[in-house]
Amino acid sequence: MDSIIKKICAGDVRSASRLIRDIEDKIPEARAKIKKLYAHTGKSFIIGITGAPGAGKSTLTDALITELRKQNKTIGVLAVDPTSPFTGGAILGDRIRMQRHAEDTGVFVRSLATRGALGGLSHAAGNAIHVMEAMGKDIIIVETVGIGQQEIDIINHAHSVAVVLVPGMGDEIQTMKAGLMEIADIFVINKANRAGAKQLQTELTSMLNLSPKTADGWKPPIVIIGDAFKPDSFAEDIAQLAQKIEEHHIYLQQSGKLTERMHRKAMAEIKDALAACLLEPVLESLTVSGELEHFAEKIKSRKADPYSVAEEITQRFFKNQDKK
Amino acid sequence: MDSIIKKICAGDVRSASRLIRDIEDKIPEARAKIKKLYAHTGKSFIIGITGAPGAGKSTLTDALITELRKQNKTIGVLAVDPTSPFTGGAILGDRIRMQRHAEDTGVFVRSLATRGALGGLSHAAGNAIHVMEAMGKDIIIVETVGIGQQEIDIINHAHSVAVVLVPGMGDEIQTMKAGLMEIADIFVINKANRAGAKQLQTELTSMLNLSPKTADGWKPPIVIIGDAFKPDSFAEDIAQLAQKIEEHHIYLQQSGKLTERMHRKAMAEIKDALAACLLEPVLESLTVSGELEHFAEKIKSRKADPYSVAEEITQRFFKNQDKK
Repeated sequence: MDSIIKKICAGDVRSASRLIRDIEDKIPEARAKIKKLYAHTGKSFIIGITGAPGAGKSTLTDALITELRKQNKTIGVLAVDPTSPFTGGAILGDRIRMQRHAEDTGVFVRSLATRGALGGLSHAAGNAIHVMEAMGKDIIIVETVGIGQQEIDIINHAHSVAVVLVPGMGDEIQTMKAGLMEIADIFVINKANRAGAKQLQTELTSMLNLSPKTADGWKPPIVIIGDAFKPDSFAEDIAQLAQKIEEHHIYLQQSGKLTERMHRKAMAEIKDALAACLLEPVLESLTVSGELEHFAEKIKSRKADPYSVAEEITQRFFKNQDKK
Repeated sequence: MDSIIKKICAGDVRSASRLIRDIEDKIPEARAKIKKLYAHTGKSFIIGITGAPGAGKSTLTDALITELRKQNKTIGVLAVDPTSPFTGGAILGDRIRMQRHAEDTGVFVRSLATRGALGGLSHAAGNAIHVMEAMGKDIIIVETVGIGQQEIDIINHAHSVAVVLVPGMGDEIQTMKAGLMEIADIFVINKANRAGAKQLQTELTSMLNLSPKTADGWKPPIVIIGDAFKPDSFAEDIAQLAQKIEEHHIYLQQSGKLTERMHRKAMAEIKDALAACLLEPVLESLTVSGELEHFAEKIKSRKADPYSVAEEITQRFFKNQDKK
């Protein structure tokens, strides 16, 4: 076994951090390492936490870490930041906020802000999770913002998904809930000391009562989290959240649904890896040769259309020409 | 010229709607039509409107249509909905809300909720915009929720981007602003009658003063939009927004930046088309043959890793084996 693989499997933070950084920076060697690491993955329980900006996900994650550490569980946290398409810069807030766990060797926190090749962020997130799995973390928390397709792809790496809502959002909350309804295993009403919490709970309950998901054996519970500045009651609320997550874990195991979700995850991973193996090398070679610029000029001036260009490229690289 | 192409170029709503639906449903014939249509595109000015759920984007778009119609401009609107990965269901809210323009032949509104293949939504959005361009719309408004990479990809189809903020969001607004700062050409503080509007404006102004973008010749203005329930002052605010958009359009033309943006758009379109031509047929053929399921099982049981599987597939389909 490669020495770095051995070190990661022994929980070495420095080796794990380096490999995650290499994944993020798309260092070609990282792929070979992930391949070797793969046999040591698949044993952690992966929790996804998602919701709109301002929903308080980082504070929740932070408190959840404290609670799960009391139960002696080892934890990996991956905070996926929305990334600027121009700078690719990470927002360091999450990492800073969770700093108080920095001394605890049972907690490993990383944030990720890979920029945008097709499926790139989801792919990198999947691999960063694999590193944490190989480290032997009992629980991995993936925290991500938002409700776009890319965020849903990321959250699909999780076995159990908590969707965080806050009272007092606009009427588009309906829109948001419709999209999130189907990925949520647990709903969290956060900052429930604010006006509108009761109304949100009522709305959510009636939506859940209408949802076909209840027929499926698991009715997503609604966990109410109050004021984070009242430490005692907040800790109790968080313990309640941890309890619901644990119940969902047991449900997944006993019903066979965990296997289903792992299968779904494997499908998503094939797609991510295919984009990396098929598409990225083509784009890279066309960029290096300057042809991509040339094609873009032709398209801009309407001398060609994007499909004809893509078909020309496909013909050059592809063996199988059944489908153009 | 194909009769449907001819009809779309003459502004026929039924033909345009059908092609957009075919794009959304991934009907193979749609691609050939887009290819033929392409020469008739590229003349509209494309405005992107983005912001968090609840920011009031649809109301703004609706009011902007009214204002631009006063100036006799023809308008296409594409509302891109966040989509569930399971049902692919569109949220009809936007379409319903803009119903009052339904009788106006100068306005064409469609919403889009294509689900998830890699880059799929951005790709479909780009093509739906092309249909509206071919219809000869002077202005196309693309409205999308959120700040994820996918939403940024969609908004990159626009020439000018308005980012809508509302007072009183949580502290993660900082995070959001950091990501949006670089794509915004115009900032809108909506619902400015709410508490916190002044503070938001102050914060935004100081961020803008620090931003390198001011050196680039265009300093994103901040447009303040008040209470939508006060029709007179609201209409004035919207007129102000339309004015700033127009100023930005003139700036782009005179500075040569419009050409730059069209080039960037062409690059994005090549990538989208390549994903459609390279990746999708491979996934489809593996799905039909049942191999994708088989591979997923191997990955799930850790008998194989996703990269080895992707490399095996790549070897089978790919001519050029310089890069594995």
